[in-house]
Amino acid sequence: MSPADASEGTPAQAPTIAVVGGGQLARMMAEPAAALGLPLRLLAEAPGVSAAQVIPDHEVGDYRDLDALRRLVEGCRVVTFDHEHVPTEHLHALEEAGIAVHPGPAALVHAQDKVVMREALAVLDAPMPRWAVVTDLDEVVAFGLPCVLKTSRGGYDGRGVWFVHTPEEAAPALEAVAATGVRLLAEELVSFRRELSALVARSPSGQAAAYPVVASVQQDGICKEVVAPAPDLADSLATQAQELALRIARELDVTGVLAVELFETGDGRVLVNELAMRPHNTGHWTQDGAVTSQFENHLRAVLDLPLGSPVARARWTVMVNILGGPADSGGRLYDGYPHALARDPRLRVHLYGKEPRPGRKVGHVNAYGDDLQECLDRARHAAAWFAGELGDRSE
Amino acid sequence: MSPADASEGTPAQAPTIAVVGGGQLARMMAEPAAALGLPLRLLAEAPGVSAAQVIPDHEVGDYRDLDALRRLVEGCRVVTFDHEHVPTEHLHALEEAGIAVHPGPAALVHAQDKVVMREALAVLDAPMPRWAVVTDLDEVVAFGLPCVLKTSRGGYDGRGVWFVHTPEEAAPALEAVAATGVRLLAEELVSFRRELSALVARSPSGQAAAYPVVASVQQDGICKEVVAPAPDLADSLATQAQELALRIARELDVTGVLAVELFETGDGRVLVNELAMRPHNTGHWTQDGAVTSQFENHLRAVLDLPLGSPVARARWTVMVNILGGPADSGGRLYDGYPHALARDPRLRVHLYGKEPRPGRKVGHVNAYGDDLQECLDRARHAAAWFAGELGDRSE
Repeated sequence: MSPADASEGTPAQAPTIAVVGGGQLARMMAEPAAALGLPLRLLAEAPGVSAAQVIPDHEVGDYRDLDALRRLVEGCRVVTFDHEHVPTEHLHALEEAGIAVHPGPAALVHAQDKVVMREALAVLDAPMPRWAVVTDLDEVVAFGLPCVLKTSRGGYDGRGVWFVHTPEEAAPALEAVAATGVRLLAEELVSFRRELSALVARSPSGQAAAYPVVASVQQDGICKEVVAPAPDLADSLATQAQELALRIARELDVTGVLAVELFETGDGRVLVNELAMRPHNTGHWTQDGAVTSQFENHLRAVLDLPLGSPVARARWTVMVNILGGPADSGGRLYDGYPHALARDPRLRVHLYGKEPRPGRKVGHVNAYGDDLQECLDRARHAAAWFAGELGDRSE
Repeated sequence: MSPADASEGTPAQAPTIAVVGGGQLARMMAEPAAALGLPLRLLAEAPGVSAAQVIPDHEVGDYRDLDALRRLVEGCRVVTFDHEHVPTEHLHALEEAGIAVHPGPAALVHAQDKVVMREALAVLDAPMPRWAVVTDLDEVVAFGLPCVLKTSRGGYDGRGVWFVHTPEEAAPALEAVAATGVRLLAEELVSFRRELSALVARSPSGQAAAYPVVASVQQDGICKEVVAPAPDLADSLATQAQELALRIARELDVTGVLAVELFETGDGRVLVNELAMRPHNTGHWTQDGAVTSQFENHLRAVLDLPLGSPVARARWTVMVNILGGPADSGGRLYDGYPHALARDPRLRVHLYGKEPRPGRKVGHVNAYGDDLQECLDRARHAAAWFAGELGDRSE
């Protein structure tokens, strides 16, 4: 083994990918980027954020600042995203300046604005909950209670969402949109059997790869657990969900990863709940459970490279998020390793380099194998252990 | 998905691992380090070397400079290595300054100095080729021709090794050691069926994990191809090779990954050829073919964390190195992707961010599956394609 010599560098022909946003999704893009020899350049919100810890070529700046975005993309082949918050007009400006934007602004707006998304899905005749734009209490009542109210823009991880059973419960939602000027969406409160997610990657030239449909468990608006593939899902419904995701990706011209979050109803239908156009929490299982991870396929897609196989490598893969623990502890992270790794030598751990605050996503674990219950037990135990919910903190 | 917020950083309790040497082995440690949330700090030979492209916390310095090493390890829990060239006295100085050195200098010297290695293996009564230290032509002839002459220190990838059939052929070796003052080792020219490698990871507290024994094909002293597990290897011989590697790791007090390169003789014995104390080319298949990669287990071991399972995930995994192509082309790297990835959606590619010069290792591919011949075909085709040995360069 020779010491690296002094003349090497990135092969000249590998294009640089600009990534806006320094959260864990950008961090997890860094692993396949290193393997594939693809340089990343990151715009980070602040020094030391999750992705900035592992991407050398980064600068600190505001994703709402067009000048910062212009500096970021200089010399890059393409720009992509850790989150969906970059203003649409800035994305158009970057496109006009000649940089490839993936997903493009015309597609991304459907993940940014829930009203635009519902309108587009209506044109596609995609199955979804009954919905309407509402502007005041009378319209909410006329829509029918109970219902879900959602801000059209700016919500995430359960924020900007209100479950409304009485007229009084609509007040906070109406106040929130009055203060911000965004539109308010009312949606039928769907009685669902469970939540599913259909994840696809699609390249600008139109190649697409559909991952197995998974079941997800959400709690307080945060993804808690994913099982891949969704247990006891009828083949016909799985195929229908994949075809729906592929059709949405094609019709909206999505590039990169698209996650279609679905409700499975008691009578065997799927309804579109949300769209996300980036690697998604319901696809984290692919890092250890699929031939090609969603992060690798996202990078391949935005460069218009052939996509990797989305096929599962194990009979079952379970992902459980690690959340920051109780306020007095914050949970264990590094100091949780001796027990967690010794107990389960097959456990796959992914931490995000974030301070564990209560309820905050700071990592996830994947467990795969032939026995679903065993995978669930292993992953749930490890995540609870890291969150500080098990054992004695003073040990 | 929330934009990363400004207050985060590396969890305070995660210890930093110092890595000396910026080659591909350090680069490939960065992937599991990111997943496990373990910060790395790198001493790179020059700006932009392979690992410096993917490890933000790096500085440029000389691994022979004790001051540079002292600066590197400041505030780190442990120091480990991309290569075996750090002077032994510097490692002792770092240990005396209170930093954990893994593998430690007393172990590492066996991978640095082939005479010391042979002497130690003799004490362990480990099977190996007949050997002797030789100082002049008379001693070479007395040892017996044909033989292999090796410089005790400083050789790698086939350099510092001479195959000697006639007294005349011994001259370059004798001249080389006369110029450098290192010792010269003569070894019996073993007639072997094939080369095997037994890879183990061992932690300071003594836990060890043994990977399946693999077959490797070397060409001009460079690892060309690895098949995991070694085809048609008798169970008893596989167990013997693993036990031998575990015993060597224990007796020499190796921490981290130890690769024991072996000759399998025609009469069903294994003989120790070389030792390496770091992630090794014959273990690159573990990135896609084992539950826990050698890079992850190396990091776990040097931190004395519980080791991950070394079990294979696929029936067969084949690794083929990508070498820089003919002088007029250098080979394809990024521009080889459209064909290579489209042809084989299950192909796993690992590039090192190195300029492709003829014969230089610039990456590798892994292919896994149930059919060995199919895996060999896929991996060989892809590596040859990237090396520019197939197809039309002008296409």
